[in-house]
Amino acid sequence: MQRRNFDHRFSSAIITMLAAGGAPLANTDVSVEQTRHAFAFGNIGFDFIPLANNETEEPAERPFGGASVSKLGDLADLWLDLFNTATLPFYWGGFEPERGKPDTRRLLATAKWFAERGTTVKGHPLVWHTVTAPWLRDLDETEIERVQRERIRRDVGDFAGIIDSWDAINEVVIMPVFDKDDNGISRLARKIGRIPMIRLAFEEARAANPRATLLLNDFDLSSAYECLIEGALEAGIQIDAIGLQTHMHQGYWGEDTMLAMVDRFARYGLPLHLTESTILSGHLMPPEIVDLNDYQIPSWPSTAEGEARQADEIVRHYRSLVSHPAVESINYWGITDDGAWLGAPVGLVRSDGSKKPSYDALHSLIKGEWWMPATTLRTDELGRLTIRGFRGDYAISASGRSASFALGEVDAATVTLA
Amino acid sequence: MQRRNFDHRFSSAIITMLAAGGAPLANTDVSVEQTRHAFAFGNIGFDFIPLANNETEEPAERPFGGASVSKLGDLADLWLDLFNTATLPFYWGGFEPERGKPDTRRLLATAKWFAERGTTVKGHPLVWHTVTAPWLRDLDETEIERVQRERIRRDVGDFAGIIDSWDAINEVVIMPVFDKDDNGISRLARKIGRIPMIRLAFEEARAANPRATLLLNDFDLSSAYECLIEGALEAGIQIDAIGLQTHMHQGYWGEDTMLAMVDRFARYGLPLHLTESTILSGHLMPPEIVDLNDYQIPSWPSTAEGEARQADEIVRHYRSLVSHPAVESINYWGITDDGAWLGAPVGLVRSDGSKKPSYDALHSLIKGEWWMPATTLRTDELGRLTIRGFRGDYAISASGRSASFALGEVDAATVTLA
Repeated sequence: MQRRNFDHRFSSAIITMLAAGGAPLANTDVSVEQTRHAFAFGNIGFDFIPLANNETEEPAERPFGGASVSKLGDLADLWLDLFNTATLPFYWGGFEPERGKPDTRRLLATAKWFAERGTTVKGHPLVWHTVTAPWLRDLDETEIERVQRERIRRDVGDFAGIIDSWDAINEVVIMPVFDKDDNGISRLARKIGRIPMIRLAFEEARAANPRATLLLNDFDLSSAYECLIEGALEAGIQIDAIGLQTHMHQGYWGEDTMLAMVDRFARYGLPLHLTESTILSGHLMPPEIVDLNDYQIPSWPSTAEGEARQADEIVRHYRSLVSHPAVESINYWGITDDGAWLGAPVGLVRSDGSKKPSYDALHSLIKGEWWMPATTLRTDELGRLTIRGFRGDYAISASGRSASFALGEVDAATVTLA
Repeated sequence: MQRRNFDHRFSSAIITMLAAGGAPLANTDVSVEQTRHAFAFGNIGFDFIPLANNETEEPAERPFGGASVSKLGDLADLWLDLFNTATLPFYWGGFEPERGKPDTRRLLATAKWFAERGTTVKGHPLVWHTVTAPWLRDLDETEIERVQRERIRRDVGDFAGIIDSWDAINEVVIMPVFDKDDNGISRLARKIGRIPMIRLAFEEARAANPRATLLLNDFDLSSAYECLIEGALEAGIQIDAIGLQTHMHQGYWGEDTMLAMVDRFARYGLPLHLTESTILSGHLMPPEIVDLNDYQIPSWPSTAEGEARQADEIVRHYRSLVSHPAVESINYWGITDDGAWLGAPVGLVRSDGSKKPSYDALHSLIKGEWWMPATTLRTDELGRLTIRGFRGDYAISASGRSASFALGEVDAATVTLA
């Protein structure tokens, strides 16, 4: 395996510990424990909407799929033990299937449920031509633009403070030429053009939540996306991060291809988010399928051989991406095979709720190699100790008192126990 | 064959003929003859540089190929009888292989030679990463940008009035990611971005010749080019026409595919120029070749079967494109197989100088179905006659006196013989 450099992910700092009164805590055993990565290890949180809303019956409509309600408790434990960032579904067609009746209450409860468990929450997406509101079809383009703008303002405003990160607009490269259905968003994009579509999404979202991190997100990682990004940046649109989808239903691309792609998009000096990554634990989708949605089969089992391969590939995928300084986020697309998109065995957990080898492999990496569990260290005569670890938040405690600090840019800090 | 509509290419007008003194030329036979199409039927004029410069020896360097000097006279007759627009080569590496010694004199003579024969002349290209000046490799990006700007100003200025149409920049989609060689233009594009590259090309060319028609030209006709065009237009760059390359060494695409592509680019409301069309009269290049330059074979013969196919396809190609209202120009890429790019049998004339069936087929269309030869018509008692024909310039004469008029938007005109 190629050696990769993770120096930019780790820091060491000399921490001077002070007791509550301000005196150095000399020659004392203290317990240090990491509480958060300074890196978004995310996954979709779609499955947990019923759990967060105390719904015990299967929802009548699950426009995005999702795991069986009875299994959500155990699944949540597995999810929360591995990931720190949840993506929630705001597909307009699912969120507001009937005009004027958005599903705000249930999504807000879900976002809060995640936030209370220390998870950052992201919304996906504010503008997209697929799964968009079917009632847009009855409107002319001027009206579509107006209600699209209103929708962004409303939802970004309603969730501000709980969701401060959004895929502002999704898959713009194909948006105006998408011809699989008649939908209002493609029609609007065809009329006003791609860059005005991006502008309206960012403009409204920014106005509704100036603190939000706003992404442009796409599956088309060809030169087309480069050209689109360059056009949007030249047009003065402030893009906070570039979203790169990497659904690998047709096979893991390998580190070299993945990093060469990442390098192309790193050229813009913007943070890169790998927004949608999937790696299969079953047979691969044939390479001739262009739109993944076209591959519909009755059963797509997870296999022992596939699970071993997935465990190997997911570690290589995360290791290579975390080694790249421009990458700030990897979002895996699905915790379980139960109710997964296309029925594909993409999960880290089998449909029966048991962990696949990929779960343990990724856990060993993220919460093992890249994580400091509770560790006892001893201060010197001046109350100092040196901590080296994955950048992020840490808790430190001694004699029943505690404090927190961030390991990052600074190489020395003073921490007072309270 | 699908019926296509050519109404937008034809006009009829009532012409009132006046004698030199101003009296109506009643009940008189007059001769009407078309002199030019209001449509650019072009071809490259690369081959004729030696002829226009009275060079009887083969040039030492022919960076763009070209036909044998001894055959140029006959070839010129065939060329001039079919085409009205010539593209001349301004590849920087061929035009100025040694810094400060541009080939201005020979190209100016060639442009004048064409202009004197009633041919519109176009220059190709002002900025391109391929066949660019090799000495750019020794310069840093700031200096490359400076000399690129100077080169545009100099050449567009030197040829203004004779060449008023330019491919301002070529193949920008791939420009910054082109990795087949180390060249100064890709390096500059990587540093400053695609849209600033387009801006500098248009800015300098426009300043040097405000009357010029300036094109963006590309072979990548995917969504990437759409995104690039939209970005450039949003950035306020005035593009006069969109150039679409259609080298069909791997087979004619067919009318439906071609027109669907044209429709995608017609969306911007700009004139479309099919800048580089080729159709083979020999075996096709295998479909797996991505960069056409990678297909190098010792001999690529024109065959009887291939020539019949080419004749059929070229007529379908021109007929379909001329039927599309957004298309203003079709430029075929090569008159002869002699010295053709890649040695491919793309010409309308064989290497031995004889015409292929495609030459006659295209001639029957352009100078037959779409052309009015000298025709005798008779004016009525008020001196009027009705002319219907392909839009363009016409000459009219009676009793040794003549006049000219344009058949286009106007449905009535008065013409005075002089």
